[in-house]
Amino acid sequence: MTEQLTLYSAKVCPYAQRVEIALQESKLDFTRFEVDLQNKPEWYAPKVNPASKVPAVSYGGPKVSADQPSPESQKIAESLVLLEFVADLSGKLLPKDPVQRARVRFFIDAISNSVVPLFYSVAVRGESPEKLYKGLETLQSLLPAEGFAAGPEFTIADAAIAPFLGRFDLVLKNDLGAYEEGEGVKVYEVVQTDPKFSRYRKYFADLKSRDSFKKTFDENYLKTVSAARFAPLRAEKKASKGSL
Amino acid sequence: MTEQLTLYSAKVCPYAQRVEIALQESKLDFTRFEVDLQNKPEWYAPKVNPASKVPAVSYGGPKVSADQPSPESQKIAESLVLLEFVADLSGKLLPKDPVQRARVRFFIDAISNSVVPLFYSVAVRGESPEKLYKGLETLQSLLPAEGFAAGPEFTIADAAIAPFLGRFDLVLKNDLGAYEEGEGVKVYEVVQTDPKFSRYRKYFADLKSRDSFKKTFDENYLKTVSAARFAPLRAEKKASKGSL
Repeated sequence: MTEQLTLYSAKVCPYAQRVEIALQESKLDFTRFEVDLQNKPEWYAPKVNPASKVPAVSYGGPKVSADQPSPESQKIAESLVLLEFVADLSGKLLPKDPVQRARVRFFIDAISNSVVPLFYSVAVRGESPEKLYKGLETLQSLLPAEGFAAGPEFTIADAAIAPFLGRFDLVLKNDLGAYEEGEGVKVYEVVQTDPKFSRYRKYFADLKSRDSFKKTFDENYLKTVSAARFAPLRAEKKASKGSL
Repeated sequence: MTEQLTLYSAKVCPYAQRVEIALQESKLDFTRFEVDLQNKPEWYAPKVNPASKVPAVSYGGPKVSADQPSPESQKIAESLVLLEFVADLSGKLLPKDPVQRARVRFFIDAISNSVVPLFYSVAVRGESPEKLYKGLETLQSLLPAEGFAAGPEFTIADAAIAPFLGRFDLVLKNDLGAYEEGEGVKVYEVVQTDPKFSRYRKYFADLKSRDSFKKTFDENYLKTVSAARFAPLRAEKKASKGSL
């Protein structure tokens, strides 16, 4: 008998989307519970994740309602830990060969330290969106000539980066972010047309076309949420510039 | 036939020591090459690790001298990627059960984000060594009542933390670090005697007593190197305080 598996997620959170993509790809059965991050249920921290963040998983124990988690199930948190857990449980999403597995993990390590932080420096701190070019070049240097991050098969490396690429795209296209008005769409145009980003465009198109991405990326919702989040940051940034 | 495995390491580097401990525990055969980080061989970045850091591994390919790495071997870098690689290759140092594996990885994630950075804030930036108490309390909260990080067996979680605990101990005991003179030994005394740190003391004693630690931790060398590194930081910190 298969153990129950419940994912505590939030549509807004790219880290949670990583795990949801992996679960979709793994074909494991799971229950999804949306945690309202602005108004977390009072049982969430004590009964699921003391750090009070998503994603988190409850695994095993009795089949109970997701909002009444059992003390008998195992609780696991942190997106990268959970990606490995999904791969271990399903026997999918990671190659068998130790060297190939190391390539998957090196990719995740590299994007976590270079591509992902650049995204935040632009969207949240209002640094020049041109920084994204550097991030995309780094990403391209890590990708093989075709296929996914570690070859022809989709792996946890792809699940780890996809939510961030989806958000780069959405934020630039809609000119959201703490940078100056109009900067986002300019960069978006370059990213869409410059031949030097063709490998990135193909890779992102491959990720976006998968059911695992479509089912877990609610574009309209994210657009609304991002607009509400970034508008005050842009105003703040502008005000602090004016006061110099 | 077993593939050749060469570890490019440096005695000074805790990240490299992680991998060396894991290799010692795994009983895999390997060749160790000491990279002089102050004066790196010119072939190191182009032929082994473009990031020019240790640890890195060459795996497979022809059996060649470590200072003449073959383009036919696989090159792998980053300490946490390499810990998983050693576990995959050897079939040791990670439990088989997915939930237990997740516990090992959660421990590594937690210490990387809380315990290890606290160490650097004290030793390098001269913040109060009392910050270490917080780090040790976090560590204790992650440990089971006895045994190693994830139970009775030594795992890559233990290999990941041991080099940092060794350096905490050495730096405090010898009052090295950018904090004020005399602060280190005071904190060391508390850590050695206060009943609230007894779980930490037992755990560190268990780690230190292993051959894998003894063979990879050159205390006298590290003392000399740390003294040379931290003395100017302390002087700088003092000067900047004086100028306030």
